[in-house]
Amino acid sequence: MTRHQGRHFLHIPGPSPVPERVLRAMDMPVIDHRSAEFAELGKAVLSGSQRIFKTSSPVVIYPSSGTGAWEAAIVNTLSPGDKVLMVETGHFATLWRQMAARWGIEVDFIPGDWRRGVDPSVIEEKLTADTAHQLKAVMVVHNETSTGATSRIAEVRAAMDRAKHPALLMVDTISGLASADFRFDEWKVDVAVSCSQKGFMLPPGLGFNAVSDKARAVAKTNKMPRSFWDWEDMLKLNANGFFPYTPATNLLYGLREAIAMLLEEGLDQVFARHQRLAAATRAAVEHWGLEVLCQESKDYSPVLTAVLMPPGHNADEFRQVVLDNFNMSLGSGLSKVAGKVFRIGHLGECNELTLMAALSGVEMGMRVAGVPHRGGGVDAAMALLEQPLPGNAPRHLAVVK
Amino acid sequence: MTRHQGRHFLHIPGPSPVPERVLRAMDMPVIDHRSAEFAELGKAVLSGSQRIFKTSSPVVIYPSSGTGAWEAAIVNTLSPGDKVLMVETGHFATLWRQMAARWGIEVDFIPGDWRRGVDPSVIEEKLTADTAHQLKAVMVVHNETSTGATSRIAEVRAAMDRAKHPALLMVDTISGLASADFRFDEWKVDVAVSCSQKGFMLPPGLGFNAVSDKARAVAKTNKMPRSFWDWEDMLKLNANGFFPYTPATNLLYGLREAIAMLLEEGLDQVFARHQRLAAATRAAVEHWGLEVLCQESKDYSPVLTAVLMPPGHNADEFRQVVLDNFNMSLGSGLSKVAGKVFRIGHLGECNELTLMAALSGVEMGMRVAGVPHRGGGVDAAMALLEQPLPGNAPRHLAVVK
Amino acid sequence: MTRHQGRHFLHIPGPSPVPERVLRAMDMPVIDHRSAEFAELGKAVLSGSQRIFKTSSPVVIYPSSGTGAWEAAIVNTLSPGDKVLMVETGHFATLWRQMAARWGIEVDFIPGDWRRGVDPSVIEEKLTADTAHQLKAVMVVHNETSTGATSRIAEVRAAMDRAKHPALLMVDTISGLASADFRFDEWKVDVAVSCSQKGFMLPPGLGFNAVSDKARAVAKTNKMPRSFWDWEDMLKLNANGFFPYTPATNLLYGLREAIAMLLEEGLDQVFARHQRLAAATRAAVEHWGLEVLCQESKDYSPVLTAVLMPPGHNADEFRQVVLDNFNMSLGSGLSKVAGKVFRIGHLGECNELTLMAALSGVEMGMRVAGVPHRGGGVDAAMALLEQPLPGNAPRHLAVVK
Amino acid sequence: MTRHQGRHFLHIPGPSPVPERVLRAMDMPVIDHRSAEFAELGKAVLSGSQRIFKTSSPVVIYPSSGTGAWEAAIVNTLSPGDKVLMVETGHFATLWRQMAARWGIEVDFIPGDWRRGVDPSVIEEKLTADTAHQLKAVMVVHNETSTGATSRIAEVRAAMDRAKHPALLMVDTISGLASADFRFDEWKVDVAVSCSQKGFMLPPGLGFNAVSDKARAVAKTNKMPRSFWDWEDMLKLNANGFFPYTPATNLLYGLREAIAMLLEEGLDQVFARHQRLAAATRAAVEHWGLEVLCQESKDYSPVLTAVLMPPGHNADEFRQVVLDNFNMSLGSGLSKVAGKVFRIGHLGECNELTLMAALSGVEMGMRVAGVPHRGGGVDAAMALLEQPLPGNAPRHLAVVK
Repeated sequence: MTRHQGRHFLHIPGPSPVPERVLRAMDMPVIDHRSAEFAELGKAVLSGSQRIFKTSSPVVIYPSSGTGAWEAAIVNTLSPGDKVLMVETGHFATLWRQMAARWGIEVDFIPGDWRRGVDPSVIEEKLTADTAHQLKAVMVVHNETSTGATSRIAEVRAAMDRAKHPALLMVDTISGLASADFRFDEWKVDVAVSCSQKGFMLPPGLGFNAVSDKARAVAKTNKMPRSFWDWEDMLKLNANGFFPYTPATNLLYGLREAIAMLLEEGLDQVFARHQRLAAATRAAVEHWGLEVLCQESKDYSPVLTAVLMPPGHNADEFRQVVLDNFNMSLGSGLSKVAGKVFRIGHLGECNELTLMAALSGVEMGMRVAGVPHRGGGVDAAMALLEQPLPGNAPRHLAVVK
Repeated sequence: MTRHQGRHFLHIPGPSPVPERVLRAMDMPVIDHRSAEFAELGKAVLSGSQRIFKTSSPVVIYPSSGTGAWEAAIVNTLSPGDKVLMVETGHFATLWRQMAARWGIEVDFIPGDWRRGVDPSVIEEKLTADTAHQLKAVMVVHNETSTGATSRIAEVRAAMDRAKHPALLMVDTISGLASADFRFDEWKVDVAVSCSQKGFMLPPGLGFNAVSDKARAVAKTNKMPRSFWDWEDMLKLNANGFFPYTPATNLLYGLREAIAMLLEEGLDQVFARHQRLAAATRAAVEHWGLEVLCQESKDYSPVLTAVLMPPGHNADEFRQVVLDNFNMSLGSGLSKVAGKVFRIGHLGECNELTLMAALSGVEMGMRVAGVPHRGGGVDAAMALLEQPLPGNAPRHLAVVK
Repeated sequence: MTRHQGRHFLHIPGPSPVPERVLRAMDMPVIDHRSAEFAELGKAVLSGSQRIFKTSSPVVIYPSSGTGAWEAAIVNTLSPGDKVLMVETGHFATLWRQMAARWGIEVDFIPGDWRRGVDPSVIEEKLTADTAHQLKAVMVVHNETSTGATSRIAEVRAAMDRAKHPALLMVDTISGLASADFRFDEWKVDVAVSCSQKGFMLPPGLGFNAVSDKARAVAKTNKMPRSFWDWEDMLKLNANGFFPYTPATNLLYGLREAIAMLLEEGLDQVFARHQRLAAATRAAVEHWGLEVLCQESKDYSPVLTAVLMPPGHNADEFRQVVLDNFNMSLGSGLSKVAGKVFRIGHLGECNELTLMAALSGVEMGMRVAGVPHRGGGVDAAMALLEQPLPGNAPRHLAVVK
Repeated sequence: MTRHQGRHFLHIPGPSPVPERVLRAMDMPVIDHRSAEFAELGKAVLSGSQRIFKTSSPVVIYPSSGTGAWEAAIVNTLSPGDKVLMVETGHFATLWRQMAARWGIEVDFIPGDWRRGVDPSVIEEKLTADTAHQLKAVMVVHNETSTGATSRIAEVRAAMDRAKHPALLMVDTISGLASADFRFDEWKVDVAVSCSQKGFMLPPGLGFNAVSDKARAVAKTNKMPRSFWDWEDMLKLNANGFFPYTPATNLLYGLREAIAMLLEEGLDQVFARHQRLAAATRAAVEHWGLEVLCQESKDYSPVLTAVLMPPGHNADEFRQVVLDNFNMSLGSGLSKVAGKVFRIGHLGECNELTLMAALSGVEMGMRVAGVPHRGGGVDAAMALLEQPLPGNAPRHLAVVK
């Protein structure tokens, strides 16, 4: 068999597989970005995005990666020398911190072991201690794509409220949004950062900021040079469905379709599906005798599962075996955990059989690569996936005639 | 979970999944079918098809289904009242026989139990007995799509040779071609019938006849009215890359791409892949304690596996459970075996993980539907698929550091 | 400039350009043709086709070219030795006649000069003379694709009624349907033949028969061997949205989309658009001092315009100049008029500016090729196209401020 | 006729129409951006882009609009308080200047009347006067998309050389690149800014910076906060075909295809084609008696032509008439010339007949809208386009037989 015959299984935690409907929606002629037809598109994706973020506040859409949307959050709200509180949940939290530092922000970076989400009590403690309100923002990652640990944002907000601290709550929900529950308004988030290539099931190329009134007010007085990322420039034209510079029109076509698909399925169903697939993945991993990187069960990510390799085995060599033999891409360990973990993405356009393909590929790959494990992980996952979904109509049963 | 979220797994024995490359090749503007540009396309697909049939004889391509190509084989070679020899290998052999009867052909239909391929010795016996050479053709099915039994065409040809009988050898390789080894010239086949939506990995809409010199000579004198299906009309224009009436241009774009993909992989590799996937499927079925419909191991189909349901369980109800719960289409039992068998297609754009998804869906479906079986079939399939392919480079092994 | 840079202009009278929406609808995974999902598709295209034919009688859809649908009309209704009346309106009427002859039909072929549609009075005369009712069918072409002359089917029907003749009325509306008005029920047509690649704006690969009760009754007793084309086999399964053999699924996806587009625009608007574009084309041709092949103004085709070359100039050489220099395909003269005429298709996805591109290419091509003509034809066409459409809202006028 | 039936003609000066090949190349599954397969893509587009910029210096590709690439040029090279020289060639030069101001740059903005390109002698004068070498950069627009005037960059460079001034030469060739000749190395440009949706014939979503060694050296010491736009972060990973954050993978698929198309045609042929189409457009405009906005014939843009409306007529109302009646989008006048000019884009995937469609739409639109003009502009354009291309093989001539 040639190495890469047939369908490639993309099980990295983003970019996630793009549904045919979305790709085909993007495969259409570009239109005049100053036309009435475009304005309809613009309004549709701007208001549709609000439904996904669960907010009535505006959502800004950049022609950029999520990294760009990180930068937008910083430059619109902070000033050089500002202090912020961040938490080392993993590689991406660390990168965001580095970015903040490059913009002259002083970061109080709460250290972490990359194996759990944010501890709200530490946030509360830090904020309570900051009686001078020098901390301008709490910046946390909703779903750490590098570790598979989710932070409980509602509890972070509760901690901030208990501390009665006026800091902005800025949340990277780059890989969380549209896969894990996220509630911008209810959780009183001030800036949420996301992108197209995760739960939105789009190719990369769009960055998002949801922006609270409070954040927007701060943006009017902060002292950070900016132009491309400026919210007000965006919001002024967005009001009529337009953008201050040429938007990524065809990605917006795809966004319109992806939002329609998410709402057709229903966000609660989307979240339940991700939870179910994640649970099945962990059932397999645990059966294999491998360790899930995330140690806090209440922080398990519905989006991806990072798996620790047994000592003496290199995750990247294993990933290469899986790619060569089974035409599947798994996510690599990043930075501190490079070579030590691999990541299984189960987000976006993923269903039970797609996941079973992926888990079979991991189990066979371990056999081929000589990675010690206990067989039967795939069975353990099936045992979970053959259970009915709670609240769903009972499954059909073949009646004996 | 909504019933049909995410990717649909199409595991019927055709139409088979169409690769993205092929769909995208078809998604292009139609061109003038009388232009030089079209002639290049025409020549490419006509000569490319010869490579797939392994013949230097012409291949005729109709804008039709495989059923049309069956009809073309009959009306170009037989005359009303002619006698032919056919074998009841299954549903499709039976349908082809009915079609022949509608054209006034007298069919000696060797009965069969739908659980094996053609028995060459019976062919030999029948032909030897036909000293008057009244039988004008032996018409057999290479791969019975309804049963998953393949007939050994080379042995049928040997039997005909031993009988020194001049009958034409006409072979339906509708679901065999490009998945199971087929050698038009070497096996001295006179007419081979195929279509686009099986091993060619195309949408339905093209029918094929490969035509030997002997068949073509017969066609010049037989007495059957015809126009649309006439070979000579076709071949005259095919010589320059054209067609006597408007061809299905966009399907031909797809055919050009599909042939390229088959040749890139290599036909031998394509056949080995199908054999491997079929073996893994049977390993699962046997482990489950279910019966493969085909009882002759040398006739096992590399294309599909038909599975008998345990007594008292209805295959179509089971298929519905699988569709509803796991978004996978399995093939139904047809005619005599309706409700009694389901069919797992593993042809065309199918690789190890695609198959594992399918087998997982079957195993979980049995649990959901209450079909008695022994768990572990998926493991049995994995045990086979994790073995290296004979003759291939050794697999990568992760080295313990 | 490379010869074929940029968009190709396809102005042959079919295949016509396929809209992006239709191509993209076809560019989707094939589904199980025995599934409930398919049945919905099947029902949608079968009932949608009835709306386009303007009939409550069934429409049969073959995976074939229009030539196949011609054959279907013949083999379902006629018996060897039957007599029919046909009219030599052009190349395609002649081909249909040849096909009938190959099926053993005796054709009374009313000669024609290829420059007009059917003369209903001759039909009436012939039928009135046939007091023994030996003529089983009147078979005429609605829109002669080879000449650009349309026959007035309503008047043919009236002539048949006046003659009180029971012959079937069989109409080839291959290039007429969905471009020129056609009314199956109102005109009491018995069999209408069409295909996908003209007014339906699809790639080639589908053939259509609309079938009256009377034709269907005849089909139950006629004596012509058939299987693939048999109406009853089709209609039995069509009742539930299925087909007796694998249908051309992806073309049916496209058909569903194309029917939606036709009904969105409105059939009357579709016909008016074709009339308008045809009138503009003739205005250009007449201004150039060239002759439109069709000499009967009431028979002018809304679908295409065939143009006579000035004596001493070869149409195919001219077409080649246009293709080489302006990347446009024009239709060739066929058979009797080969080299003498070229044909401008203005059907399907064609609007004012598409047509202006085409007419500019013809006018410039004549200059490059040295074809004598009077300049200004493009202006003459614009003079017509800048007029408002009758019955439409008044055009916007820029107001002087 | 429904307003928007059939093909839309997009004749704004960007986004330009995207060729089918490019759209289809983008319509493919996203891949792992850290895989070897991606690295091949990355290297291909990075080195391919160098060929289009005509440079051996690196080209940086951002997932952004061209506006983002403007910002990248500024933040990588300048420091707050730096002085630069810019020229008011039109709306986009003005916007770039505003952006620079927002970054704390002091701009010496040479005023202009929006009707011509940069005057190199003024540049020379300014630089010569700047004996203290306070001006850190000369920032000019190669092709002003708002006016249709091109600046002669080679002459700007010569002026700088004559002044022996060390300022960086930064050029916005957003709408120039791949349509108008541009030579990064030969003209010793230091930073060139471009984007995907103009000459590259892609949807919007990619921004480009070509970066000279000199600019890169400056970037290592300048004092402007940045992270997303940082060249060095990019170049480090680009060396292996990767990117520091998730790139817009599917747009890169399209870029690979677009570069292939440009090189297949040949850059010189691409430029000649644009010149030819521009000349034909001006021939029409001049015949109509309208004024081309650009008054300097040596600055005429090959990319677009901006046309002044007759006094008392509003360009936007005229554009709406054209859109409503002829389904064509023309570019609006921006800022100072809003309502006074409309712009005809003739860039990217545009050929003779596409342009003739557009010019026909303008001429008919003027009639419908009551805009005074002299008829015959379309004829004037044809008179030019029917001329052979200099240096090309002679056109075919139909021979009188």
